[in-house]
Amino acid sequence: MDRFETYVQDNQERFLGELQEFCRKPSIIAQKIGIDETAQWVSDRLQKIGFEAQVISVEGGAPVVYGEIGTGDKTLMIYNHYDVQPPEPLDLWDSGPFDAEIRAGRIWARGVSDNKGPWMARVHAIETYQNVVGELPFRIKWVVEGEEEIGSPNLGRFVEQNRALLAGADACLWEGGRRDGAGRPVISLGMKGICYLSLSVNGANSDLHSMNAPIVSNPAWRLVWALASLKDENENITVDGLMERVVEPTQDEWTLLRDIPFDEEQIKQDYGITTFARGATGEEVVKQLLFDPTCTICGFLTGYTGPGPKTVLPHQAETKVDFRLVPDLNPELVLQLVREHLDRRGFTDVEVELLAQLWPYRSPVDHPWVQTCIEVARAIFGAEPVVYPSSAGGGPMHQLCGAFDIPGISGGGAGNPNSNLHAPNENIFIEDYMRAIRYTGHLIRALNKL
Amino acid sequence: MDRFETYVQDNQERFLGELQEFCRKPSIIAQKIGIDETAQWVSDRLQKIGFEAQVISVEGGAPVVYGEIGTGDKTLMIYNHYDVQPPEPLDLWDSGPFDAEIRAGRIWARGVSDNKGPWMARVHAIETYQNVVGELPFRIKWVVEGEEEIGSPNLGRFVEQNRALLAGADACLWEGGRRDGAGRPVISLGMKGICYLSLSVNGANSDLHSMNAPIVSNPAWRLVWALASLKDENENITVDGLMERVVEPTQDEWTLLRDIPFDEEQIKQDYGITTFARGATGEEVVKQLLFDPTCTICGFLTGYTGPGPKTVLPHQAETKVDFRLVPDLNPELVLQLVREHLDRRGFTDVEVELLAQLWPYRSPVDHPWVQTCIEVARAIFGAEPVVYPSSAGGGPMHQLCGAFDIPGISGGGAGNPNSNLHAPNENIFIEDYMRAIRYTGHLIRALNKL
Repeated sequence: MDRFETYVQDNQERFLGELQEFCRKPSIIAQKIGIDETAQWVSDRLQKIGFEAQVISVEGGAPVVYGEIGTGDKTLMIYNHYDVQPPEPLDLWDSGPFDAEIRAGRIWARGVSDNKGPWMARVHAIETYQNVVGELPFRIKWVVEGEEEIGSPNLGRFVEQNRALLAGADACLWEGGRRDGAGRPVISLGMKGICYLSLSVNGANSDLHSMNAPIVSNPAWRLVWALASLKDENENITVDGLMERVVEPTQDEWTLLRDIPFDEEQIKQDYGITTFARGATGEEVVKQLLFDPTCTICGFLTGYTGPGPKTVLPHQAETKVDFRLVPDLNPELVLQLVREHLDRRGFTDVEVELLAQLWPYRSPVDHPWVQTCIEVARAIFGAEPVVYPSSAGGGPMHQLCGAFDIPGISGGGAGNPNSNLHAPNENIFIEDYMRAIRYTGHLIRALNKL
Repeated sequence: MDRFETYVQDNQERFLGELQEFCRKPSIIAQKIGIDETAQWVSDRLQKIGFEAQVISVEGGAPVVYGEIGTGDKTLMIYNHYDVQPPEPLDLWDSGPFDAEIRAGRIWARGVSDNKGPWMARVHAIETYQNVVGELPFRIKWVVEGEEEIGSPNLGRFVEQNRALLAGADACLWEGGRRDGAGRPVISLGMKGICYLSLSVNGANSDLHSMNAPIVSNPAWRLVWALASLKDENENITVDGLMERVVEPTQDEWTLLRDIPFDEEQIKQDYGITTFARGATGEEVVKQLLFDPTCTICGFLTGYTGPGPKTVLPHQAETKVDFRLVPDLNPELVLQLVREHLDRRGFTDVEVELLAQLWPYRSPVDHPWVQTCIEVARAIFGAEPVVYPSSAGGGPMHQLCGAFDIPGISGGGAGNPNSNLHAPNENIFIEDYMRAIRYTGHLIRALNKL
């Protein structure tokens, strides 16, 4: 691959210029800014390297860019997104979020790490491969969506409506990927799901003087009792039938888990806490973080919440509860279990509404495409990869990979430990960008050998 | 008392004019408007009918007007207040809240029912008595405070600092009093106390992404579990040692209670509820309302409470809890019981702060002064009095009556069922005002006969 390396180096200036051009296009889905225009730009750029690319509109959502190239028995799916988080607060940026300024060895721009840099590096890797090796050795199906930063609300529908187009891939190279502080490449093989509920109770027809409390039922109390039935003081989720569905980590997953660096003292210091939940230490902390489902009160509002006392009996109470899901849980199942659990205990007055949902997904660690992604990372980064069997957070991996039962591998990105994703001064190092190009180039060759 | 009646009728126009003058003086304690000036006016007015009156300043609070008159073995204490609620919202008044307009047989003004009219009626009753009968037959000690509408935060201190001055009364004629829809005079012999707490928990040093929920303890959950330990799903307060201190109604109190008109269907319709708490019906509803302590969630705030989902792990949670107290509970005791109860269950992380407090108080039903107040009401109103052994709400009766162990009797006021206390268009009927004067006049004579 010497010629690959030479081509990449010779074209570094142009590559960075193109990345700057991409980053200078605001594509802020939350604010509906620049979405269609950026989708078209992405499609055009894919066509330039030979992709049959199209902008596929999705009713009520942002369009998805879809491109195909190559022939052969194998098919690699790739997932990226062209939308970015809002840049606010603007005054905390050292240079404009859409200036894409190069400074001190880095490019600074909203989206440069999440996820425009990693997408562009893949484009540049394929271009390089084509120029120094020739035609791609297998088929690529590339999905570039535009709603990742608002939770991919329409990706599932897009997949449903385009199953024939998308089917037949062996694995999916996911977005994401960074190196940690020790230079180790970070790879993730799964994502938790989400079942985000609103639980609410209505009482009297208006707030009442609290002297009426002996005779008028209080919706805030009803909600507290309902909540207390969902999770106990020892942090055990007690929703009937929920924990029974949770799959324990496999031996392979435990092996990966034990190798994940996790600086307990540093994390405790960062969060300002003295112990972890359940008093966990060592590998148990990481096991909980990655493999345990959660039931989190994200918000609770009722009655008077200003300063001082106000003697009021609230007539309405609402709480937002976020269940993070691991296999074999899913949002519809959890919604149903919660409803049945509450009904069984007489909490028929608690209204349950589903506000957001994602299915969990985990890729098999021993899948050959997964192992190849890990091996190439080890070679290119020159360090032992940190492989997460699942991220602690959620993502739409199930919508794409689950639909076709293929492994999803997140890695090979250009991020660093201080890339400031979703924050001011988002950045990547030029060095990391060039390494991301090399990673994808080498990966294509390695996957071809399978 | 024919001459009493004649004098009252002859002076009606002047009486009403003076009441208007009083009502035209805003004395809004919450907004610190007109307090000192009104206190002086009240003191001057008492002096005009022969009281040794003075404005006694209270450090950090509104001054208390204190007046004494008369000689003899018996002493009657009287309690009123000269402060009023804020008049807002102004646009809902049909005439200015401090215009004291007379219209359709009523006087309309902020404070005319609560509590300027009832105070003035007592002044006019004493003036009339002095003019048609002569010197008062017993001693009167009159306390007119200026902070009732903000919970009488300094009345206890005033009593402490002026014990010698206030001591020696046989009973206390309290503020309040109205007729109900059927024309029955309403008398109240007690008030619940209050222990208003803030319970709060701090977690991490800032709100975190909810993916951290498996390892970082959630203050909202801690608070939910702590709350659920204070009161169970059957509405039983489960604070260790609390219910054991609650005194059951006496036979006399049960007798009064059974005679209190309570239109269950109307109340349910007014509040928009289908059943009362605990499924109570009949006299049990009234018993609960007047004799049960409460533990009410008045407010709960944590995390994200806007529209839609936000996956956040809150770092702070606060709830406000209002305990309404009956004998033999008191705020200090309840604060201590709650603290010990929480500590015993490991909730040492729940911070408990006392935001407001009142002791409960109940007067003995069979006390001769109490019985006399009831009998005179029966005669003057020409209807069977409705006697509450305790109100459902709180008030500072304990601070004055409890300090000297004398009965407090609230009654003889000028209110009607639609007097709009604390609301726009507060009013009393002229007819009710004149009856309130007669009530006090007859009461002086009747008490003298004891």
